[in-house]
Amino acid sequence: MAGNTFGTLFTVTTFGESHGLALGAIVDGCPPGIPLTEADLQHDLDRRRPGQSRHTTQRREPDQVRILSGVFEGVTTGTPIGLLIENTDQRSKDYSQISEQFRPAHADYTYWHKYGRRDYRGGGRSSARETAMRVAAGAVAKKVLAAKGIQVRGYMSQLGPIELPFVGWEHVEQNAFFCADPSKVEALETYMDELRRAQDSIGAIITIVAEGVPPGLGEPIFDRLDAELAHGLMSINAVKGVEIGAGFASVTQRGSEHRDEMTPEGFLSNNAGGILGGISSGQPIVARLALKPTSSITTPGRSIDIQGEPIELVTKGRHDPCVGIRATPIAEAMMALTLVDHLMRHRGQCGDVHVDTPVLPQL
Amino acid sequence: MAGNTFGTLFTVTTFGESHGLALGAIVDGCPPGIPLTEADLQHDLDRRRPGQSRHTTQRREPDQVRILSGVFEGVTTGTPIGLLIENTDQRSKDYSQISEQFRPAHADYTYWHKYGRRDYRGGGRSSARETAMRVAAGAVAKKVLAAKGIQVRGYMSQLGPIELPFVGWEHVEQNAFFCADPSKVEALETYMDELRRAQDSIGAIITIVAEGVPPGLGEPIFDRLDAELAHGLMSINAVKGVEIGAGFASVTQRGSEHRDEMTPEGFLSNNAGGILGGISSGQPIVARLALKPTSSITTPGRSIDIQGEPIELVTKGRHDPCVGIRATPIAEAMMALTLVDHLMRHRGQCGDVHVDTPVLPQL
Amino acid sequence: MAGNTFGTLFTVTTFGESHGLALGAIVDGCPPGIPLTEADLQHDLDRRRPGQSRHTTQRREPDQVRILSGVFEGVTTGTPIGLLIENTDQRSKDYSQISEQFRPAHADYTYWHKYGRRDYRGGGRSSARETAMRVAAGAVAKKVLAAKGIQVRGYMSQLGPIELPFVGWEHVEQNAFFCADPSKVEALETYMDELRRAQDSIGAIITIVAEGVPPGLGEPIFDRLDAELAHGLMSINAVKGVEIGAGFASVTQRGSEHRDEMTPEGFLSNNAGGILGGISSGQPIVARLALKPTSSITTPGRSIDIQGEPIELVTKGRHDPCVGIRATPIAEAMMALTLVDHLMRHRGQCGDVHVDTPVLPQL
Amino acid sequence: MAGNTFGTLFTVTTFGESHGLALGAIVDGCPPGIPLTEADLQHDLDRRRPGQSRHTTQRREPDQVRILSGVFEGVTTGTPIGLLIENTDQRSKDYSQISEQFRPAHADYTYWHKYGRRDYRGGGRSSARETAMRVAAGAVAKKVLAAKGIQVRGYMSQLGPIELPFVGWEHVEQNAFFCADPSKVEALETYMDELRRAQDSIGAIITIVAEGVPPGLGEPIFDRLDAELAHGLMSINAVKGVEIGAGFASVTQRGSEHRDEMTPEGFLSNNAGGILGGISSGQPIVARLALKPTSSITTPGRSIDIQGEPIELVTKGRHDPCVGIRATPIAEAMMALTLVDHLMRHRGQCGDVHVDTPVLPQL
Repeated sequence: MAGNTFGTLFTVTTFGESHGLALGAIVDGCPPGIPLTEADLQHDLDRRRPGQSRHTTQRREPDQVRILSGVFEGVTTGTPIGLLIENTDQRSKDYSQISEQFRPAHADYTYWHKYGRRDYRGGGRSSARETAMRVAAGAVAKKVLAAKGIQVRGYMSQLGPIELPFVGWEHVEQNAFFCADPSKVEALETYMDELRRAQDSIGAIITIVAEGVPPGLGEPIFDRLDAELAHGLMSINAVKGVEIGAGFASVTQRGSEHRDEMTPEGFLSNNAGGILGGISSGQPIVARLALKPTSSITTPGRSIDIQGEPIELVTKGRHDPCVGIRATPIAEAMMALTLVDHLMRHRGQCGDVHVDTPVLPQL
Repeated sequence: MAGNTFGTLFTVTTFGESHGLALGAIVDGCPPGIPLTEADLQHDLDRRRPGQSRHTTQRREPDQVRILSGVFEGVTTGTPIGLLIENTDQRSKDYSQISEQFRPAHADYTYWHKYGRRDYRGGGRSSARETAMRVAAGAVAKKVLAAKGIQVRGYMSQLGPIELPFVGWEHVEQNAFFCADPSKVEALETYMDELRRAQDSIGAIITIVAEGVPPGLGEPIFDRLDAELAHGLMSINAVKGVEIGAGFASVTQRGSEHRDEMTPEGFLSNNAGGILGGISSGQPIVARLALKPTSSITTPGRSIDIQGEPIELVTKGRHDPCVGIRATPIAEAMMALTLVDHLMRHRGQCGDVHVDTPVLPQL
Repeated sequence: MAGNTFGTLFTVTTFGESHGLALGAIVDGCPPGIPLTEADLQHDLDRRRPGQSRHTTQRREPDQVRILSGVFEGVTTGTPIGLLIENTDQRSKDYSQISEQFRPAHADYTYWHKYGRRDYRGGGRSSARETAMRVAAGAVAKKVLAAKGIQVRGYMSQLGPIELPFVGWEHVEQNAFFCADPSKVEALETYMDELRRAQDSIGAIITIVAEGVPPGLGEPIFDRLDAELAHGLMSINAVKGVEIGAGFASVTQRGSEHRDEMTPEGFLSNNAGGILGGISSGQPIVARLALKPTSSITTPGRSIDIQGEPIELVTKGRHDPCVGIRATPIAEAMMALTLVDHLMRHRGQCGDVHVDTPVLPQL
Repeated sequence: MAGNTFGTLFTVTTFGESHGLALGAIVDGCPPGIPLTEADLQHDLDRRRPGQSRHTTQRREPDQVRILSGVFEGVTTGTPIGLLIENTDQRSKDYSQISEQFRPAHADYTYWHKYGRRDYRGGGRSSARETAMRVAAGAVAKKVLAAKGIQVRGYMSQLGPIELPFVGWEHVEQNAFFCADPSKVEALETYMDELRRAQDSIGAIITIVAEGVPPGLGEPIFDRLDAELAHGLMSINAVKGVEIGAGFASVTQRGSEHRDEMTPEGFLSNNAGGILGGISSGQPIVARLALKPTSSITTPGRSIDIQGEPIELVTKGRHDPCVGIRATPIAEAMMALTLVDHLMRHRGQCGDVHVDTPVLPQL
């Protein structure tokens, strides 16, 4: 495929530039019979939407999505679902000066080398605005998963130096950071205000959890569930690292400590993050992703222009000082898309249901 | 695809169980005109082969690979390359007792749920022995990359708690650990000896570097070079985490620190790990992968059998106390396969060569 | 993939029901630097559009296409091209009565079995209206091919019993039938008028020719150029047969007659239809496709309803008595899409250009 | 993919040159639990094998296939099935003279242009010998289909000018031609003897029928069951045309005649060939393929060499005067592979079983 499609049997293909006419997606392979409305998609789009708090870019897009096909009388028909968001707030003039400049740590220089040209307005196709369509498609995936009893949720587990422990899901939607510990929110507010004054940006870690995944999901060897999850999560703008379960911490664990022992009552731990040999174990699937600090800051930086001449460059426009803040719904979407695709492929793979295998309860 | 194929235009498809008759692979899409002999493949296979030191499993397989097609008069013809390694040292009787048991932290339980049956001898398809074919295919990929001036190399950068700084490539092949710092080898030997006595295992981190990659390689959005690299690396047995460039460390970096500034003389740093917006920047591509401690240890552990009854289980057989020790050639192979595939797709994608863009030198 | 995508590196994915809100497509993998406007697409859309003569359905859709992305300052950027046609003339009430009936020789019965439900308005997704998006995407492909000196054109070579010899390309666009022999047009008009009075329909053969294709295009074995061409052409609604070059007529040819001898001045014949061993020979590529008579006729027919009860059914609504009449632009589109995809893959496949091989001129 | 893989979820990837060391295949995505032995594959390989009668090439290969993986204790495990046939009768010296010559109507000229080199021994990769692996993989597919009550069979329906009506399946394996009418066998023998004396070759038509296919199989739009069937069948060496059901004959049919009316007792005809809108109807699936006369004849022909100089060329070696004679098992294999792949994808696609839809009996 040519790069803008994700999935094998449940696929999403997207288009759209930051300052073009519209963003769109085609979700193909959705099973028939799933109730689906535009409100289902709008919920997650609103969670991702900028301008919700003073800690994200002040670009204001209603991000109103339309379902153009694939749904009839309120339920999916099995035919491709066309999605469209028209762009409304495109202040292109903010960007005209950088048309011949490469912003450091942006895709400007690499797109130029790949394509020999680029839509420079707001980052064009490389803008994080592209992820709106992932969120919309992910919301479709979540509906399919919900019909199978699978739920995908995420929260911010670190912002810069501030670690954010998991206290409870009920707190996550109560603050602008997707923070699961209400006692940390004030520290986050303070940190972000200081950061804005310093005209700088910071990274973050998001944790995504899928519960209710049955054991047996995933293709071994190259298309392992964890490998495709890493693929999907690493494809999100600004992500520089992905780990499953104990992840990098497993390096210093001993085998006797790391291995998740099994009893008839269930697994005794979940260092594996719910995946063994690339296949789900029935435990919650846990992934963490590291997002770098955005490079769109107003502190001047050295760069070159398309003639190779040195320049000093300040990124203007409206930007997020921590792209991680809005990343939770995007990461949820990529995990949901990965899982639903494996759910579709799993049913294709298995010849018959094996009834006698015990499924361990979750402790 | 059904899970055992990697790549889009340059593909490798593998087969083979640990204790079956043979392992094999088909490398498809290799360009014509590349000189290729069995010795080219054998070199990397020997680097991965067990039994090379007392720190790896004592299974002794010559791992002699045969090229069955796709090469004529010493060079590739563009047709698929068939590769075969016949298994010779299959002590299946070591494994018969576990045919109805699920070893903790192995794929036994998940394969059983997926397929309803499994070849239990030595882990069957889920054995790390499968990776021999990745290494053979990766060696083909390395030959193609070499023809384009691209070199992929790796080293162990951490074993359990022992961090292993990079001193020089010339040291890597001088010890059993792929360690780039000769002063650390003795400490590694001591640590491993102690570990064996403790009948336990430990994790490791491998760093892989590709040099000579031109700018402009990679497909944006879902098939980013870093996303497919993460896919390939996470698909290796025991890998629980992947990071590119600064990776998880970028979380606590500020944007002003993380961004790699550009001058006419080159980039001033490489926090990006050579990839911006999913496309190569011309800088060295740097990835790190975390391997968990193997679960095949002789310390007893709790588990269940296929009837769901509790058991206590000791993994017998011959196993690596640190699977990371032999992982460097495998990780190199997956990076080489990812890069060569993108090289093939890149040429397909680009309409014309853009001659005027300055390519920054590497500092 | 899930069925609504065509191509490997140059892909088109479509959505849209006959009486839904819109039809759309994403063309991915288009090389950068190709001049492209909506008028380029509109030209072929108008050739396919119904209501152009009294011999096609009187449904009147302007079929106005919008390019929503992937084009910047008049040329393609290499990013996905979003295309949209909003539906305007949807007389859904024509179809409400058949919501629980299976029209004979339509996809009603099979969609029902596959999906358990269907958008019955105007055939929903199985309507020939879907092909509008193929034509739009094919027009993009034609622009890329034109930049390489490749031209794809077609004509009707048989309508029911009336064979239509090729006289000259200049005649094809001068009549409503895409007939290359002006002397036959009157006979076609008479035949079609009689057919409409008989309330019946008829089949047709379309011939498609690609000129300027360089030798060496195509992947051997399964992804042969002819195999993928057959795939693309057979995927068009109502097509029941595809042949390349001499096609079925080659069955009664002797080898000494069929083989196209080669001289330094060129091939002496083209029974192969420009493809040998699945790879282009540099001769014109010639394919023919057989279209069945449409089943949407006003002559009553026996069928069943969704309860399995027998019914007698008359297809109302506005339909083409010969779907072959509008099929030429659709078949051109599928050939153009197949060729441009192979052009992209070919460049990916080949390591280096082989300069010394003589390319035979076309006689 | 790179050309040597067929299928989406049930895939076969092949390698091997006519005069190389071996032919091989990997069948991936086979469901677990299917009983499978080498004898299952050998049966169809023997039906395809040359040297069975005086009407085929006298090359004598035992074509002994080995299963190297994916089967444990007599049944498939769900892991990839490695297949291998070692070449034994490679008389390469027959071919050395043509190393710098392009045989007319062979792939020599086109492979040269694509790859810039070729294994000229016996046609190398473009030899019909490659199809042995399709037959072996197809035999696996047939076993899976048989478990679902689906049977794929074929027969020769025309040899040159001699039409061969279907009399009964029981006759097909009783003669060297796969002819279903015993009264025609003598005429075929006489025709072939005459043809050999004339040092010429002839084409043929094969008819393939799948019975027991449930309604609802196939992906609409581009991956229609008929489109992928056409893809698979057209990918067989020497095939120049494919038709489904009434095929090209439907061109002169009227809609009132062509449409297959439905009654509670079943369809009243099968002009559709068992496929409507790209999805199976539950009727037998019927396809016909036209094979050209082989170009490997001993009658001299004009051609050029790799310098572009004119030559006169006689194809020596051992060749089939009618490649259609051995094509029936190959065509069966491609239909079986197409169907089993759609069977796997179908299960992935469908969310739930729709129980109430009446399935029409076959009349």
